[in-house]
Amino acid sequence: MSLAAALSRIDADLDASLARLFEIIRIPSISTDPAYAADVARAADWAAKDLASIGFEASVRPTTGHPMVVAHWTGPVERDAPHVLFYGHYDVQPVDPLNLWERPPFEPALITRADGSKMITGRGSADDKGQYLTFVEACRALVATTGKLPVRVTVFLEGEEESGSPSLTAFLEANKAELSKDLALVCDTGMWDPTTPAITATLRGLVGEEVTIHCADRDLHSGSFGGAALNPIRVLTKILAGLHDDSGACTLPGFYDGITDPPKPVTDAWDAIGLTPEEFLGPVGLSTLAGEKGRSTLEQIWTRPTCEFNGIVGGYAGDGFKTVLPAKALAKVSFRLVRGQDPAKIRAAFRAYVTQSLPKDARAEFKEHGGSPGLALAFDSPSLAKARDALTEEWGKPALIIGAGGSIPVVGNFKQQLGMDSVMVGFGLDDDRIHSPNEKYDLTSYHKGIRSWARILAAL
Amino acid sequence: MSLAAALSRIDADLDASLARLFEIIRIPSISTDPAYAADVARAADWAAKDLASIGFEASVRPTTGHPMVVAHWTGPVERDAPHVLFYGHYDVQPVDPLNLWERPPFEPALITRADGSKMITGRGSADDKGQYLTFVEACRALVATTGKLPVRVTVFLEGEEESGSPSLTAFLEANKAELSKDLALVCDTGMWDPTTPAITATLRGLVGEEVTIHCADRDLHSGSFGGAALNPIRVLTKILAGLHDDSGACTLPGFYDGITDPPKPVTDAWDAIGLTPEEFLGPVGLSTLAGEKGRSTLEQIWTRPTCEFNGIVGGYAGDGFKTVLPAKALAKVSFRLVRGQDPAKIRAAFRAYVTQSLPKDARAEFKEHGGSPGLALAFDSPSLAKARDALTEEWGKPALIIGAGGSIPVVGNFKQQLGMDSVMVGFGLDDDRIHSPNEKYDLTSYHKGIRSWARILAAL
Repeated sequence: MSLAAALSRIDADLDASLARLFEIIRIPSISTDPAYAADVARAADWAAKDLASIGFEASVRPTTGHPMVVAHWTGPVERDAPHVLFYGHYDVQPVDPLNLWERPPFEPALITRADGSKMITGRGSADDKGQYLTFVEACRALVATTGKLPVRVTVFLEGEEESGSPSLTAFLEANKAELSKDLALVCDTGMWDPTTPAITATLRGLVGEEVTIHCADRDLHSGSFGGAALNPIRVLTKILAGLHDDSGACTLPGFYDGITDPPKPVTDAWDAIGLTPEEFLGPVGLSTLAGEKGRSTLEQIWTRPTCEFNGIVGGYAGDGFKTVLPAKALAKVSFRLVRGQDPAKIRAAFRAYVTQSLPKDARAEFKEHGGSPGLALAFDSPSLAKARDALTEEWGKPALIIGAGGSIPVVGNFKQQLGMDSVMVGFGLDDDRIHSPNEKYDLTSYHKGIRSWARILAAL
Repeated sequence: MSLAAALSRIDADLDASLARLFEIIRIPSISTDPAYAADVARAADWAAKDLASIGFEASVRPTTGHPMVVAHWTGPVERDAPHVLFYGHYDVQPVDPLNLWERPPFEPALITRADGSKMITGRGSADDKGQYLTFVEACRALVATTGKLPVRVTVFLEGEEESGSPSLTAFLEANKAELSKDLALVCDTGMWDPTTPAITATLRGLVGEEVTIHCADRDLHSGSFGGAALNPIRVLTKILAGLHDDSGACTLPGFYDGITDPPKPVTDAWDAIGLTPEEFLGPVGLSTLAGEKGRSTLEQIWTRPTCEFNGIVGGYAGDGFKTVLPAKALAKVSFRLVRGQDPAKIRAAFRAYVTQSLPKDARAEFKEHGGSPGLALAFDSPSLAKARDALTEEWGKPALIIGAGGSIPVVGNFKQQLGMDSVMVGFGLDDDRIHSPNEKYDLTSYHKGIRSWARILAAL
């Protein structure tokens, strides 16, 4: 059986796989700092050559920023479908503050812990060099043992993920035909815990709004005008206070239209996790769920939309006291959206509510801060079931279908620009310290991650 | 008749009176700027000598800041009672920005306008050198023509009014017996309009509170925690929104306890003014009263208490957008109080309301920013009636009994420290540009102001 051979090969080749990972970790491809531009280019070259060494037709593709790497498998395949697009990124976060690192960030090492477990250290070990190589190394083993891949594969690596992906949209637009495949595989997520694999199937979208309430044409003295003159902080706080009802639900008309709950087996699995509010909120000093009554912790952060106030400012809020009636007050409001909600309709409903709530003499000014829909895989999609079974097989424990409360922008781009769903599988752990000093990736994540992808590719 | 003689003398002596005013305007007694300390001392000396030249026993009294001037009339009087304490201040505001002045601020001049009316220019011409000299010059004329004053008089001049009166409380405390008189006369207010004199009989007090709502022990990402974690801006806005009902009234229990409306003749006079919301609010770009329904413009700013939000801040409110759930949010809340309300009770009611409104996981931290009661003369006080009749006589038009929406701290000090009511009479006009470049004082204000005080002193 070809998969068994590939898995054996992965085990046997682990030291060489690690050596390759160390090679790319040694390249300080910090995308946000122009001083490292040549290193970023060097990392792109390394990634393309590495893919070419397996047999991919790999190219480094210039953009107005850092290059993209695109590699097509043009060799033999077992099945023509699906054609998958694997996404990862070869750039990394800055390393400041350097003095907090226990080892130099770009000199990777394999460290054995007291309990015998091992970890790979270095910037990018987890985010995302280690993660993306789990997929590439799986392809290497499959090709080495079978001479082919189970399905058609295109690898797409970005070099600007850690600096806001400024070139991504234009690149996808310009290369739509080449990159639009049946399914995207995205490896930028994590495990549920160190022994439980997970597939992230839902991401929340976001509508960001900034509203400024204007009243008088200047700041007023609260002695002279207090009582008689309209106070924009009072108008604003009343408007914001009206956005949630007593059950914690958002009051905007139509806000929940189009939302469907995940199927019972999925929510049953979540209930089985039994994550209590205390467990989830305790580490940040809270204990009680603040969202819709009757919804579990995981529903509140994964599959229910929110209305949050991210910022507010008005009048004098420095030291001491100033008896001012300000001319204006501002709030930043965001809505996390789930699948089924239309960002444009939510924005319009918010603006209509604010406008209708304005007393005479008050005026609202709006500014848009982004809008993206919530995303969710069809929970009954065969790809999801196959990936879940493959992960379950590898880890010896049922893989969880989970959600993510935030967004992963590239998944939105794939959906909106290329019409492509993403299956998000990753092997990161909560303690990987990505974006922080002493980033690491467990050797188990790397080794079993490679094995997991071999199984998933074979199963698709 | 002695008053008639004094009035004639005032008219005849106007040029000399003006020369004296010009002398003190020429001294740049800017109290807030240490560079002018010697000038402030010089102005105190000038004021004391000027009072001594009339026959007062005047002294310059050191403080830890700028000196006070205290002058007792120890000469003959017509009546032993009341003994009045006249308050004014000889210090002035800074003059920046100097380039906006049409004439040098400390070179006073008498300017004739196109319509023939005249004005005195210079920093302090209105606030408060011109105003306080109206009283002193009235005394001078009365003494010059009758050899005595109608009642006992003590003049008390401060040199730190424009820099927050840091020495006032201690000075009053240390000289309580010397300065506690039957009635204070305070000349730091204005006319209703250029032809209508006014006595300010009510001042609103102030309770200032700062409340910070704390939730999580750190800022959270709204993707990971949004929905589940309590948002302090949401808690704060809901609390603030609950402080007013739909009629614009403050909802704190007992908030309006102890308040009595002014007597009907007073409010009838206000109704007769017929100040519309548009007239009052139009100049600042508003048109509609925001306070308690059913209360007139003048009631809303003079005799009704308020609950205002002077500042609010929480989360990220700069450019762009940050998907943060902040750990805390802060508001500055003030209550303008009228006579009958107890600042301590209002503060306690506010804190109790906030505390009772807190959901689980939220904590409120309070900071006190001052508390002073509202003040009002008894509307039936004989002194008030006498002063009103005297002003009516001088201006040929009924003097209005008015209120002030803000506080005049010294009036609070007199009431609380010395147990003394204040009758506030002044001749300033709305266009005097006090605290701004091109401060002026109308010659009519000065001349008829002096005559008014002579009449008031004779009437008391």
